[in-house]
Amino acid sequence: MTADLSRFSVNQETVKQLSLPALAAACGTLGITQVGLWRAPVQEYGPAAAARLMRDAGLTVTSLCRGGFLTGRDPAGRRRALDDNRAAVDEAATLGTRTLVLVSGGLPAGSRDQAGARERIADGLAELAPYAAARGVRLAIEPLHPMFAADRCVVSTLAQALDLAERFPAEQVGVVVDTYHLWWDDRVPAQLARAAGPTAAPAPPSGEPPGDLRGTGTGTPGRGVARRGSGGGRIAAFQLADWVTPLPEGALLGRGQLGDGSVDLRGFRELLDAVGYDGPIEVELFNAELWARDGVEVLAETAERYVRHVLGRA
Amino acid sequence: MTADLSRFSVNQETVKQLSLPALAAACGTLGITQVGLWRAPVQEYGPAAAARLMRDAGLTVTSLCRGGFLTGRDPAGRRRALDDNRAAVDEAATLGTRTLVLVSGGLPAGSRDQAGARERIADGLAELAPYAAARGVRLAIEPLHPMFAADRCVVSTLAQALDLAERFPAEQVGVVVDTYHLWWDDRVPAQLARAAGPTAAPAPPSGEPPGDLRGTGTGTPGRGVARRGSGGGRIAAFQLADWVTPLPEGALLGRGQLGDGSVDLRGFRELLDAVGYDGPIEVELFNAELWARDGVEVLAETAERYVRHVLGRA
Repeated sequence: MTADLSRFSVNQETVKQLSLPALAAACGTLGITQVGLWRAPVQEYGPAAAARLMRDAGLTVTSLCRGGFLTGRDPAGRRRALDDNRAAVDEAATLGTRTLVLVSGGLPAGSRDQAGARERIADGLAELAPYAAARGVRLAIEPLHPMFAADRCVVSTLAQALDLAERFPAEQVGVVVDTYHLWWDDRVPAQLARAAGPTAAPAPPSGEPPGDLRGTGTGTPGRGVARRGSGGGRIAAFQLADWVTPLPEGALLGRGQLGDGSVDLRGFRELLDAVGYDGPIEVELFNAELWARDGVEVLAETAERYVRHVLGRA
Repeated sequence: MTADLSRFSVNQETVKQLSLPALAAACGTLGITQVGLWRAPVQEYGPAAAARLMRDAGLTVTSLCRGGFLTGRDPAGRRRALDDNRAAVDEAATLGTRTLVLVSGGLPAGSRDQAGARERIADGLAELAPYAAARGVRLAIEPLHPMFAADRCVVSTLAQALDLAERFPAEQVGVVVDTYHLWWDDRVPAQLARAAGPTAAPAPPSGEPPGDLRGTGTGTPGRGVARRGSGGGRIAAFQLADWVTPLPEGALLGRGQLGDGSVDLRGFRELLDAVGYDGPIEVELFNAELWARDGVEVLAETAERYVRHVLGRA
């Protein structure tokens, strides 16, 4: 494949039928140099061994999924969650990735208080962010589609994710921009400009006043928007999947192959270009039909779809 | 039942196993005085006969579902959609309801342009609103949950619905506030204040500046917020269902019985109280498990749940 895959990253869940060594080998064959990993297969292989495997294959780990689940109310459960998140930070550090993706957690059983749950996330971040930063890891809050607000993540919009992230220094807490979760939201252009920070933000396409774009956080003015290698300020990861219907039962495995659905993937990528994000573009599909196929074939198809639907204008 | 059902309305889809006469009889037995109807069963029964049946049973029709589907691009399809909407307006007028609920439409096949689709909705409203107003019917834009943005409705938030509605006089185009679609959105309190209009809006709970709440529409200042019998400005209907997980395949029939899920229904009703809405509170459940049960039993349960979970503080 001669196309430009320099920013392409494959999240291993996309081809979870491949073992870590098989994934590394397939990436080598296809000219893929970046992967996003998940904790369970990494733990099974051993984090140090996985790190070595990736390094020897010339692969950069762009993110580790996932920490989070910080919305519980009982003290023992919260302690366990924090311990587990510290372990996730350690694993991310071992793998050499700077980005730990957080699925923040849904409503506890019997609760209807989303605002309270978001405050508990902030409390958890306050405990975890310095620990992570000391190990070179940034916590990345992922807003999940509102259809997951009850059972997975009370952070449903990029605006809410930034409201939380901006309470902390940008080098400690960022956000994940995932097309599948955010594609429907007409505030995304303005919120991307906000995420990128005042120095990186061009005039917003929506015509909103620039004052709206500076955020309301009490973070660290002047230090929060350090560019640290890749532009984009608070944008810690850019993940892609397409939106296809009908949704499957439980909705979780509905993430569609690039180009099969309703998301203007190229337009989304251009929005991130416009605010200065130049980091990895990671494709993350959870899709039972793709998992039933040959993993190497799916990986090749995914890279081809990326070139066709995400890169430069046709 | 001695509890206060004076604002309670049952949407007939909640107990669609009941025929129109059976529904009317059950409402009489249970002390229910308001119903929301759907076009298909009304057409089957005959709109004039249905209107007579409701009137003779002492029932007020609070809304008719549904018009809309205005996002198509081909001229012939658009003409058919407009014709169908005019027929829906006529049926609403025959039934004596002022509120025609619109499910605005999703993305046309192959399109990824949500903003363009919303503009076509505005074009359709411009054709239909005067026709409806001349017949005493207000078009009510219903924002649907973002999980329906591709296939049913590109209007996903109350803010987007108001952006559209405010292009027209408030007595011609309003919005539907449905807990199932909006419960996850932390902008709802501010947008309800915006919907109610400047004269009805108290200080917003979210702490947003009041200037944000006046809307940006080019409607009819001074005339747009006429209270016309029930307060609430642009709020044409208030519908309720609870959010329960896991979502069923296709997501459509997941609307949960009041009290079974994650929505703070009482808190939502209090938000509407606070902005001056004092119209019907219509329970609309699409739920295969409820449809499999005895309809009268489900109706009695729904009224009881309404009293327990929606009315005054326990």
